[in-house]
Amino acid sequence: MATHQILLGGEWVTEATDNHFSASNPSTGDVLEDCYPVSSLPTLKRMASKASEAARILNHLPADTIALFLNQHANEIDANRIHISHIAHAETGLPLEPRLVETEMNRTIDQLRQAARCVIDRSWMQARIDSQLNIRSIYEPVGGAVLTIGPNNFPLAYNGAAGGDFAAAIAARNPVIAKGHQLHPGTSRVLAECADRAAKAAGLPPGSFQFFYQCDPEDGLSLVRMPEVTGVGFTGSRKAGLSLKQAADETGTPIYLELSSINPIFVLPEALAERATAIGTSIAKSMLAASGQQCTCPGLLVVQEGPRGEELQYTLCKYLGQTEPQVMLSRGGVEHLHKSIMKVINAGAELLLGGQPVTDSHAKYKNTLLRICGEQFLNQPDQFQQEMFGVAALIIQVQSDEEYLDIARVLDGNLTGTIHRSSSPSDDPLTQKLEAILRNKVGRLIHDDVPTGVSVNAATVHGGPFPATGHPGFTAVGMPTAIHRFCALRCYDRVRSESLPPELRDKNPTGNMLRFVDGEWTNRDVVRA
Amino acid sequence: MATHQILLGGEWVTEATDNHFSASNPSTGDVLEDCYPVSSLPTLKRMASKASEAARILNHLPADTIALFLNQHANEIDANRIHISHIAHAETGLPLEPRLVETEMNRTIDQLRQAARCVIDRSWMQARIDSQLNIRSIYEPVGGAVLTIGPNNFPLAYNGAAGGDFAAAIAARNPVIAKGHQLHPGTSRVLAECADRAAKAAGLPPGSFQFFYQCDPEDGLSLVRMPEVTGVGFTGSRKAGLSLKQAADETGTPIYLELSSINPIFVLPEALAERATAIGTSIAKSMLAASGQQCTCPGLLVVQEGPRGEELQYTLCKYLGQTEPQVMLSRGGVEHLHKSIMKVINAGAELLLGGQPVTDSHAKYKNTLLRICGEQFLNQPDQFQQEMFGVAALIIQVQSDEEYLDIARVLDGNLTGTIHRSSSPSDDPLTQKLEAILRNKVGRLIHDDVPTGVSVNAATVHGGPFPATGHPGFTAVGMPTAIHRFCALRCYDRVRSESLPPELRDKNPTGNMLRFVDGEWTNRDVVRA
Repeated sequence: MATHQILLGGEWVTEATDNHFSASNPSTGDVLEDCYPVSSLPTLKRMASKASEAARILNHLPADTIALFLNQHANEIDANRIHISHIAHAETGLPLEPRLVETEMNRTIDQLRQAARCVIDRSWMQARIDSQLNIRSIYEPVGGAVLTIGPNNFPLAYNGAAGGDFAAAIAARNPVIAKGHQLHPGTSRVLAECADRAAKAAGLPPGSFQFFYQCDPEDGLSLVRMPEVTGVGFTGSRKAGLSLKQAADETGTPIYLELSSINPIFVLPEALAERATAIGTSIAKSMLAASGQQCTCPGLLVVQEGPRGEELQYTLCKYLGQTEPQVMLSRGGVEHLHKSIMKVINAGAELLLGGQPVTDSHAKYKNTLLRICGEQFLNQPDQFQQEMFGVAALIIQVQSDEEYLDIARVLDGNLTGTIHRSSSPSDDPLTQKLEAILRNKVGRLIHDDVPTGVSVNAATVHGGPFPATGHPGFTAVGMPTAIHRFCALRCYDRVRSESLPPELRDKNPTGNMLRFVDGEWTNRDVVRA
Repeated sequence: MATHQILLGGEWVTEATDNHFSASNPSTGDVLEDCYPVSSLPTLKRMASKASEAARILNHLPADTIALFLNQHANEIDANRIHISHIAHAETGLPLEPRLVETEMNRTIDQLRQAARCVIDRSWMQARIDSQLNIRSIYEPVGGAVLTIGPNNFPLAYNGAAGGDFAAAIAARNPVIAKGHQLHPGTSRVLAECADRAAKAAGLPPGSFQFFYQCDPEDGLSLVRMPEVTGVGFTGSRKAGLSLKQAADETGTPIYLELSSINPIFVLPEALAERATAIGTSIAKSMLAASGQQCTCPGLLVVQEGPRGEELQYTLCKYLGQTEPQVMLSRGGVEHLHKSIMKVINAGAELLLGGQPVTDSHAKYKNTLLRICGEQFLNQPDQFQQEMFGVAALIIQVQSDEEYLDIARVLDGNLTGTIHRSSSPSDDPLTQKLEAILRNKVGRLIHDDVPTGVSVNAATVHGGPFPATGHPGFTAVGMPTAIHRFCALRCYDRVRSESLPPELRDKNPTGNMLRFVDGEWTNRDVVRA
């Protein structure tokens, strides 16, 4: 089979290279037949240049055109729902139903449509007008390309060619250079084809959306440093992310990272006394979601030592022990998970369950539980804050209220933190103290529920302090807030009306766009004295 | 005279060190008698720890208390207006009237009061509530201390103890560690005393505002890297700023920098034909503002070669030649200016005016104009984009429309960019092309006016692309937008009402706060089904 083409400046072209790769089916271990090129630095340079040309045009197109692109992309994906899901299933081993065909597919399509609605509405641009001074400001695109790099675990909803970063970057009118993922290049390709057809149908300039599969890591860093690349969205491993961050920081390029997270769960004594089994069951189900390969999966459980805590652990062990391990995203992922688990064991954790690959499989790992006491964790907090990407969690048994708090104090930044507390309203000082500490450590604080299952809505924050992300002031999920990541704040000072973007002219461009005019949020036109 | 004390954990204490410094009067060269300590790393560690303690309390105080602090600080400064201005005058040489006593003083006081109004209003917090899912998010403080480091050129309005960064960081409820400036330690001290009295009057916890004068640069980098420091605001030199940025980037700490800017001005042929003399005069006045020591002073003028361009240059030379140089902020500043000018001359620029210190003065430099042709600039754009901090500008004479555009294309990021164009409405393609290029290079685009004189209002953006600032999505000036720099975006997922901040509870905390509830910006209470 011939090698697939990349999308450069609006055309599918053959990469002149002998450096190719193929994906594998993690369920079988078979190498899939399609072949994909590793792009060279000159190709990446040409992409950056083409994106730069597109950027100059994109910012002046009607909002309807941008929204049409996003909606048309959603339509294309929807029309190819089954086809795309089958490719993704073969490449990732994720279940077809309901995960790929319904859940993740619907989320992907919905994100694109939400972004399109924001483009039409425009209130997210936060236009501010001082009519007396004739000073006006607004969120605009960042001026060059946004590079979107998706992770292995959400082949659709976080794909560089269709996911949340893509939707946000396009909604802000930036040209996008999307990198396909090496574990699901075919899924990435089909999504990129949808995006390309949609871009052409909407009449976007060539270079508005470009796509390549893979490059040498050093070339990737060079791409991030190019002046034409003015924003980066990355979801993936901490190591790769920090290396990209360093390159972006050198050139002052805004980069938004979603890195690892162990999502601590604190089960307080009163909650244990009330409902240890129910909590254990809910945590087990949350751990099992997508074979534990989600950035919000529970990885650290803090429970009181004693019979109620043991009841919870017993429930967890039983549920996880009775559940058949599912295929993981790759053999490499299984090996990486095993290494992470061994590190925690070598640091002194007791193995309660699992701790090894499933022998007769290509990419399955036994559901795993590890345990330490509070003192162990507090003595080596870095050793035990190890992301174990799979169905694996570390239980910390604590002996006192103070240990709950001390553990929270030494936590790294995380995407989520959960507290299970008494169901009756109470002024429990432990809860209050714990909330105050945990609040500063996580982007999303959860009560009495599980961290998995991120809802895409305007109020969601999928973010948090470093090193869970690269900046605590942003979210990767939720329109329109996620769009702000790929924007520059721009001011027009006594600029004549004909040179203003429509959103800053006296006349409200839609009649409904919310703007801050002379001290008041309003949808009215500007009336100048 | 005894050495002055620093403010640590709510108490003025003596720094146990023999490492002291004093300021000089730039008008006379005399060393001023007050003596200030250089703080040690252990002191900075104690400050970080005290700030961390304060952070836990600050976030839960009533909004009125925070606003009271800001307003009371403004009152204290206002009551000491003359005293403060005299100290600042002695330390900086800036004119007492109207600059210090009126202009900068009023701006400083007004910024604090604007911040207080934002604290009361709370709409800037952008609360978002999905009542069905019970997911809520909001901008909160960043969790630890914000370090504020002001520049030499605005001893009041950008002072770490009273300026825009201070006001924004406090409005977001962060504890502040302010560094005084080595050239105006006495001004910084008196402002810090005002802040301290205001903090005590408002009943803020000790450590909410702390203050030191100076530290070794390496210790400053260590402070930035401390986990208790969760935000940094810096205005100053590119070299110092980039060194702080590197330290902050390593630890994932958000840092907001306002660095150098040469503020290009493009005078287009039609504007030259219409009003070359008027434009020349306005640019000369803008260059002279604060002896050219403002981040928005014109440093690069692009004009057409020919009689009209010469008319503008003649006007500039005449105006600047006839105006007596004013005292600069320091002898060191004069020397630095001279070095910068010599670099530009050595790169090939022709000296039209000035180019040397005023011989019978301690800190005066002759008003300076340099000139090159477009080709020279395009051959060595880096050499000629040299900030000359003082009354000095480089004129580029261009020979074609294309040269105007090519020069814009190679510009670095700047705070401002100005275009003088025909006064009659026109679809001039040169203007349109130039605007499209320049728009991506500057934070504030100006038509037919001067870049100096930044108005503090809700629509202003004092920011821009790297290396003018560290992030193009923010502004250092303008409430409430400047506050967002020192915030984390935080989410509450099914969190019980009693654990929510008041701004996210069902009841609107003020009756007027604008919140995004179930798809709509509203000041109504949340009504749950």
